[in-house]
Amino acid sequence: MSTETKVKAKSDAAKTLDDLFEDCLKDALWAENAIKTALPKMAKNATSPNLKNALKSHLEETKNQITKLKEVFKSIGVKAEAEKCDAMAGIIEEGEGILEETKPGPVRDAGIIAACQKVEHYEIASYGTMIAYAKLLKHKEAQKLLSEIIKEEKNADVTLSKLATSEINIKADI
Amino acid sequence: MSTETKVKAKSDAAKTLDDLFEDCLKDALWAENAIKTALPKMAKNATSPNLKNALKSHLEETKNQITKLKEVFKSIGVKAEAEKCDAMAGIIEEGEGILEETKPGPVRDAGIIAACQKVEHYEIASYGTMIAYAKLLKHKEAQKLLSEIIKEEKNADVTLSKLATSEINIKADI
Repeated sequence: MSTETKVKAKSDAAKTLDDLFEDCLKDALWAENAIKTALPKMAKNATSPNLKNALKSHLEETKNQITKLKEVFKSIGVKAEAEKCDAMAGIIEEGEGILEETKPGPVRDAGIIAACQKVEHYEIASYGTMIAYAKLLKHKEAQKLLSEIIKEEKNADVTLSKLATSEINIKADI
Repeated sequence: MSTETKVKAKSDAAKTLDDLFEDCLKDALWAENAIKTALPKMAKNATSPNLKNALKSHLEETKNQITKLKEVFKSIGVKAEAEKCDAMAGIIEEGEGILEETKPGPVRDAGIIAACQKVEHYEIASYGTMIAYAKLLKHKEAQKLLSEIIKEEKNADVTLSKLATSEINIKADI
């Protein structure tokens, strides 16, 4: 397809911001479930005990975020459903590629951190968008819950950055 | 594959942080080229003149970033090569999906912004990692060039957020 093609919408296209908000929520639920599956594998293949702990701790947060996302659906009167998120599928695929492209040790750990920070940033963008929609749509409970989740994602990103620069990258450079 | 499998590295696995840095650069070059191809399509399908302009302006920045990335390769004495970035492929695929799932107008514009912010955030994570590696590896010229790029990506993200909250999302909610 030409890069400058005008794209025709499907017959069941999103007509309102509410439709778009629901689509984002379905993507996010799929993404969090995929992360829940991927994190134990990353933790298992990490060497640094600090990194293993950070990943395990974020796994618990992720499980809790799935519960919160279901509450968001409930708060707007929509059935909780997951819809495949191509972007998160690609990000996770890339993260798993890191495991094949590195041997166990600090270089693999550095690669795991890089992959996880891409996951976190994707989520920061995704929840940032959903919070803006929820605010405008006056979905107050949804806005509150999504704001709690984005705070955790941002904290997870900061934790990984600190771990990279204070320990893992330095060991990987020896 | 079980989620808890220990993964064996390929025979040509990255052994050093330098290897990992080069792999990240190759991914980034592929990603920027893919964005260069995707942005005109997004601009063509946007309705808001302000959004069209923002996307066109970021297209020019992207072209310049590709040049800068090639300079980064040169500065570390490595041939500039692109390697398919599954994550960016997935993010762009999702962005193109937005066009099929919406009709032309403010709702589609809001979706385009959301997709582009996911691209920006992926890049912020990716360049953040590469800057940390370049710093540690004492690749000063690379660090400088990558820092210039990440600044542009962060600015692009802020521009899109402002456009969403000051204009596009509001129109999409009417």
